[in-house]
Amino acid sequence: MAALPRPERRGARAALHAMLPVWILLSAVSGLKADDDAMEELATEKEAEESHRQDSVNLLTFILLLTLTILTIWLFKHRRVRFLHETGLAMIYGLLVGVILRYGIPATSYHNKTPPSCSLKEGPVSTLLLNVSGKFFEYTLKGEINSREIHNVEQNDMLRKVTFDPEVFFNILLPPIIFHAGYSLKKRHFFRNLGSILTYAFIGTAVSCFVIGNLMYGVVKLMQVVGQLTDKFYYTDCLFFGAIISATDPVTVLAIFNELHADGDLYALLFGESVMNDAVAIVLSSSIVAYQPSGANTHMFDAAAFFKSVGIFLGIFSGSFVMGAATGVVTALVTKFTKLHCFPLLETALFFLMSWSTFLLAEACGFTGVVAVLFCGITQAHYTYNNLSEESNKRTKQLFEVLHFLAENFIFSYMGLALFTFQNHIFSPLFIIGAFISIFIGRAFNIYPLSFLLNLGRRHRIKGSFQHMMMFAGLRGAMAFALAIRDTATYARQMMFTTTLLIVFFTVWVFGGGTTPMLSWLHIRVGVDPDQDLQPCGDSFQVLQGDGPQAEGQSKTKQESAWLFRLWYTFDHNYLKPILTHSGPPLTSTLPGYCGPLASCLTSPQAYENHEQLRDQDPDFLHNDRDLTFTFGDTAVTANGASGADGVGGSGWSANGKRSGSTSEEALERELDSREQELLSRGTRLVFPIEDHV
Amino acid sequence: MAALPRPERRGARAALHAMLPVWILLSAVSGLKADDDAMEELATEKEAEESHRQDSVNLLTFILLLTLTILTIWLFKHRRVRFLHETGLAMIYGLLVGVILRYGIPATSYHNKTPPSCSLKEGPVSTLLLNVSGKFFEYTLKGEINSREIHNVEQNDMLRKVTFDPEVFFNILLPPIIFHAGYSLKKRHFFRNLGSILTYAFIGTAVSCFVIGNLMYGVVKLMQVVGQLTDKFYYTDCLFFGAIISATDPVTVLAIFNELHADGDLYALLFGESVMNDAVAIVLSSSIVAYQPSGANTHMFDAAAFFKSVGIFLGIFSGSFVMGAATGVVTALVTKFTKLHCFPLLETALFFLMSWSTFLLAEACGFTGVVAVLFCGITQAHYTYNNLSEESNKRTKQLFEVLHFLAENFIFSYMGLALFTFQNHIFSPLFIIGAFISIFIGRAFNIYPLSFLLNLGRRHRIKGSFQHMMMFAGLRGAMAFALAIRDTATYARQMMFTTTLLIVFFTVWVFGGGTTPMLSWLHIRVGVDPDQDLQPCGDSFQVLQGDGPQAEGQSKTKQESAWLFRLWYTFDHNYLKPILTHSGPPLTSTLPGYCGPLASCLTSPQAYENHEQLRDQDPDFLHNDRDLTFTFGDTAVTANGASGADGVGGSGWSANGKRSGSTSEEALERELDSREQELLSRGTRLVFPIEDHV
Repeated sequence: MAALPRPERRGARAALHAMLPVWILLSAVSGLKADDDAMEELATEKEAEESHRQDSVNLLTFILLLTLTILTIWLFKHRRVRFLHETGLAMIYGLLVGVILRYGIPATSYHNKTPPSCSLKEGPVSTLLLNVSGKFFEYTLKGEINSREIHNVEQNDMLRKVTFDPEVFFNILLPPIIFHAGYSLKKRHFFRNLGSILTYAFIGTAVSCFVIGNLMYGVVKLMQVVGQLTDKFYYTDCLFFGAIISATDPVTVLAIFNELHADGDLYALLFGESVMNDAVAIVLSSSIVAYQPSGANTHMFDAAAFFKSVGIFLGIFSGSFVMGAATGVVTALVTKFTKLHCFPLLETALFFLMSWSTFLLAEACGFTGVVAVLFCGITQAHYTYNNLSEESNKRTKQLFEVLHFLAENFIFSYMGLALFTFQNHIFSPLFIIGAFISIFIGRAFNIYPLSFLLNLGRRHRIKGSFQHMMMFAGLRGAMAFALAIRDTATYARQMMFTTTLLIVFFTVWVFGGGTTPMLSWLHIRVGVDPDQDLQPCGDSFQVLQGDGPQAEGQSKTKQESAWLFRLWYTFDHNYLKPILTHSGPPLTSTLPGYCGPLASCLTSPQAYENHEQLRDQDPDFLHNDRDLTFTFGDTAVTANGASGADGVGGSGWSANGKRSGSTSEEALERELDSREQELLSRGTRLVFPIEDHV
Repeated sequence: MAALPRPERRGARAALHAMLPVWILLSAVSGLKADDDAMEELATEKEAEESHRQDSVNLLTFILLLTLTILTIWLFKHRRVRFLHETGLAMIYGLLVGVILRYGIPATSYHNKTPPSCSLKEGPVSTLLLNVSGKFFEYTLKGEINSREIHNVEQNDMLRKVTFDPEVFFNILLPPIIFHAGYSLKKRHFFRNLGSILTYAFIGTAVSCFVIGNLMYGVVKLMQVVGQLTDKFYYTDCLFFGAIISATDPVTVLAIFNELHADGDLYALLFGESVMNDAVAIVLSSSIVAYQPSGANTHMFDAAAFFKSVGIFLGIFSGSFVMGAATGVVTALVTKFTKLHCFPLLETALFFLMSWSTFLLAEACGFTGVVAVLFCGITQAHYTYNNLSEESNKRTKQLFEVLHFLAENFIFSYMGLALFTFQNHIFSPLFIIGAFISIFIGRAFNIYPLSFLLNLGRRHRIKGSFQHMMMFAGLRGAMAFALAIRDTATYARQMMFTTTLLIVFFTVWVFGGGTTPMLSWLHIRVGVDPDQDLQPCGDSFQVLQGDGPQAEGQSKTKQESAWLFRLWYTFDHNYLKPILTHSGPPLTSTLPGYCGPLASCLTSPQAYENHEQLRDQDPDFLHNDRDLTFTFGDTAVTANGASGADGVGGSGWSANGKRSGSTSEEALERELDSREQELLSRGTRLVFPIEDHV
C-alpha cells in the first residue's frame, strides 16, 4: 500500500515521530494531494511514505525483539535457568538493539538541516496556519524545543523515532499491567495480610520517599559544593525522585517465588505491596509536582502549599479508588442481572470495555486512570468474576494475561533501548552512587521499622528472614521508569531518568538473578504446597510463620483478628456479595425483615440454591471462611492506632460468632460452624477452586 | 492525574485532535513547563488538560456506545430477534449519538477564532519552528487546509474530535477483522469451493468494479448535463468508486446463516468471496489511484499507465500474499521446532506478535498489510494451528475473536456517527440513486454470468436459489467504508463517501434484516446439521446441491476434481504439512530416498507416531481426504481455461490413485483407500474434530 501515492488525509505525520509504536497503530501518514499541482506535493507524499515505511521497520524491530525474547525465555524455562527473568532478558536485547541503532547506523541518516522557522509575537498556540504562496497548511504544536536542540531537530532521526511519547506508557502499557495485577491478586493471602500490605504500601512508600528525597538533597548539595551540578536542582525535585523511585516492582522475584512455590504469605506481602505502592507512587509524585509554593520564595516550605499537596494526594487517591470500585460494581451488577453468560464472547467484550472505561472515566474526571484500573481489577476479581461463565472467566484471565505479558516485556525492552537511544542522558557518578545508597537506606527504613510495628499487632509475625527477603526484593521496574520518562524536560529530570534506568537495570539483573541463592541463604522454605498451609493441622503454616505452639494455633487465631477487617468481611459477605453476585447467602436471610421485597428482588435465584444445596461449591465463601478461621492474624496499624493485639480474646469475630448482634450474623455463624466441620473432613479438596479462582 | 499540572513532554497534543481514540491510547497531552516563567505555559497546560479530559469523555462515549450495543445484542439474542444484527444496531446507536453531538451541543463550543498564520516562501515542510520572543516551538504538519475551512479550524471542535484519522481503520481496526476472517475460515468448505470463491473474488470484483465505474460515469455525465455537478469528477474517480464499493461484507447474513445452520457450501461461497474480495478491492483501488496517465491529457486512456496499474495490482497482491504466507510458515516452523507448547502464554504471545509482524513487514516493504494479514491468517490456521497446544488453540481463537468483535462493532458504530459528524458530506440525490442502481447491476453482472460459467465446470452446480441468495447478500460494510473515508479531500471523494455510507446503512439494515424471509422465500434449507452433508449416503448433501442421482454421486465426484487443486493437495499433504507441522505422513515416506537424512531431520517424532498409531486422530488429513472423496466437485476457471468437466474420468486423482506416478502418491492412495473404509464404518465421529479445528 505504502508504495502507492497515498491519498491526502489530515494526518499528523511528523508529530508522530515521537511515538513510534502507537504510531503504526494509527499510522497517520499523509501526503497532500490535490488534482492539479503535483511536484511539491509528491515530494511530501514520498516523504510521508518513507516515514511510514521507516516506522514500520522500527516497530518491526521491537516486535522481533519481543519474539526473540519469547523464544529465549522458552529456552531458559526449558532448561530451567532461573538467574535471568524474561524482563531482564528483554532489557538485554533492548540494550543490544540500542547499541546497534546508536553506533551501527550513521547518526545523521537523511535530514541534516535546520527546519525553517517563522516568528510570531503571540504565545504558542496549538494550531498554526502556514501560508505558502496562497495555499494554507495546518500545523500543530509539538512542544517547546531547547535552543541547543534546534539544529538537531531533523538530525538523528533514527534515534528520535525509536523514542516514543511517554504518555504511551501511562495510557497504553501500564493499564493492562496494573489491571492484571489487580485481577490476579491471590485474594486469600492478600486479604489476610491486607493490613500489613497497606501499611507497607502507604506508610512505607511515604517514608521511603522522604528518606530518599532528603538523602538525595544532601547528595545534590554535595554535588554543588564539588561543582558537579551545572543546573538547578531543587528540594522538590529530590522529593519527586524519592516518589518515583519508591515504587517497587519485584516481578522477577515473584516469578521465581511462583515457580519454586515459596511461602504464600511472603508472596502476598511482596506482591500486594508492589501493586499498591505503584498506585501510591503515582499519586505521590503528582502531589509533589503540584506542590507549588506561592509568592517569591518559590522553593521554601509553604504550609498552605504542603497541605494542598496532601489534599490533592488524598483527593486523587480516593477519587480513583471510588471510580475503580464503582465501575467494578456496575460491571458486577450488569453481569448479574443479565443472562449474558450464555454468550461468553459478549461477556468478555463487555468486561473488557467496562474495565477500560474505568481508565477513561477516571482521566475524564481528573483522577488517575492507572490507579482506578487497579481497584477496578480487584473489584472485578472479587465480585464480577463470580457472575461470569466459566468460559468467560478463562477468557478474561487469559486476555489480560497476554496483554500484561506483552506490555511488560515491551516496557522492559524499551528500557534497554532507551539507555542508548535517549538523547539527553546526564550521567552523574555522584548522583548515581548517592541514589543507590539512598534507595537501599529508604527500603530499610520502610521494611524494618514497619515490620517491627506490625509484629506488635500480628499474630503470625513477619519473621526476620522474611524482612530481609522483602528488603532484598525492592526491585524497581516499569512504574519507576514510566514515572521518570514522563518528564525529562529539565536538567534535574534528565539526571533522574538516567539514574532510574541504571537502578532498574541493576536491581532487576542483580537482585532478580540473586533471588534463588537468597532464598536458600535465608532458609526460606520453598516447594510449599499452596494448599498445605490450609490443612487443619496447620503444621507447615506454623513453621513458616515462625510461630510457637501448634496446638493452640487454630483457636487462638480465631480470636485475634482485626475488628475493622471483620466488620468489612461481614458486610461484604452478607450484603455486597449477595447484591452483586450470584454467590453468598440470600439477602432475604441477611437483611432485616422490613427489606423483604427489596431483598428478594435483588437476590438471584442461584443464591437460594447455593444456600440450600451448593454450599460447598462457593469457593469465595469457603476461602474467606478458612482465612478467618485458621490463618487470619494480621492487623493494620490504622490511624487510630488500634491493633488487635494478643490476648484481646473474646472481642474478635469468631469467639462467639457475633460482634454487633445482628440476626444475619448469627446465621452466618451457624454456617461458619457447619462449614468448619466439613472442612475438617474434606481436607485439600476444598481448596483447589480458590487457587483456580483468582 | 489530569487535574495536576502535567510535566512537559514533547507530545503532539493538537495534532491528535483528529484521531481521538488512539489518541487516548497515547494521550499525547503536553503542557510546557520550565521553572521560571509561568503564565502562558499554564494556559497551554490548562488547554492540554482540558483537551485530554475532553478526549477521555469522547472515547468514553464510544465505549459506552459499544457497551450498550452489547447489552442490546444480548437482549436480541435472548429473545431470538433476528431482523437486526449487532452491526446494524451499532450503526443505529452511532447515528443517535451523532445526532446528539450535532444538534444537541452548541456547535462552537469553546474556540471560535482563526488561528494565527505565518508565511513562508518554500513549500510545506514536515517540521516548522516558531519563534516566540526568543523561545522556539516545534510544529508539525497536519495537512493542507481548504481556504473555506480556515475559519472552521478551531470551530466545531466537538465534531472534529470525534472524527478520527482514517488510517486508524487501516492500521488498527481492519487487521484484526481480516486476520480473524482468515484464521476462522472453515477450511473444509472453503477449500472445496476454492475455485468458485477465487472466481467470484477476482473476476467478479473486477467485473463489478468496471460495471459500476462505467455506469457511474454515465450518472456523472448526466449530472453534468442537468447541472448538478459543481466540481471535477473524472472517469478514474468513477472507477475508484467502483472498486471501493465492490467489497462485499455479508457479516449480517453470515451471522444468520450460522445461527440457522444454513447450507455449508453457500456459507463458504459467501464468506470466502467476501474475505477475498476485500483484499481484491483494496489492491484494486490502490491500482486505480496509481493510474496516472502521463503528459498533458491526464484523463484520457493511456495504455502504458493502464498496464502499469495492472502490474501494480499483480505486484502488490502477490507480494502481500507471499509476505503473509511466509510469516505464517515461519511461525509454523518456530512452533514446530521448539517445545513452546508447554507454555501456552508464550505461545499465544508469539503467535500474536508474529501475526502482527506480517502487517508491519508488508507495510515496510511497500505491500498491503491488510492483505498480507489475511493470508497470514489462512496459513496460520492451516499449519501453525496444528502445532499449537490445545490451550493455545483456544486462546488464540478467542483472543482474535474478541479483537474482531470489538473492532467490527467500533467501525459500524463509527459509521453511524460519521453520518452526522463528518463535516463535508455532499448529498447528491442523482448520484446516490445512480449508485444504488449500479451496485445492483454490478452485483448481478458478478454473480449470474460467473455462476453460469462455473456451473459448466462444477459437478455440484450452484443452483438458482443460491445465486439469488448471493445476489441478495451483496451487503457493503467495513471495508467499503474504510476505503471511502481514507480519502475525502476532493469533491468527488466526498460525494463517494456520503454515498458509501448510505449504501452501507441501506444494505445492512434492509438486506441484512431480510435474510431470514429471503432464505425461506428461496426455499434454502436451514437447520442443516454441519455433519450431515458428510454422511456417506450423502442424501442431504445431494438435495442441497440440487444434484440428480444419488447412487453414483460418490464414485463420480471422485473422478472429477480440478487437477490443479489435486496437485496442490498432494504437495501440501506430502511435503508442506510434514515439514511445517506435526501432522501428515513422515517425510521419510514421501520424499525420495536420497533425501533421507534431510527428511528424517525435518520430520517431527510425532509424525511417525501419527503415521503408525494415530491415523484417525489427524483431523486435517481426514477432512481433506473426505473432501476429495465425497464432495469435492469444484473447478476453477483458471487462466488456461481448463476445467475438470464431467466425463474426463480417469485423468483425475482418485480414479487410480496417481497422476504423476510418484511412489509417495501411491502410498497416499493406499492410505486414502484404507481411510475410506474406516470412514464408512465410523460415520460422524470423524467429522467433529474438523469443526473444532478451524
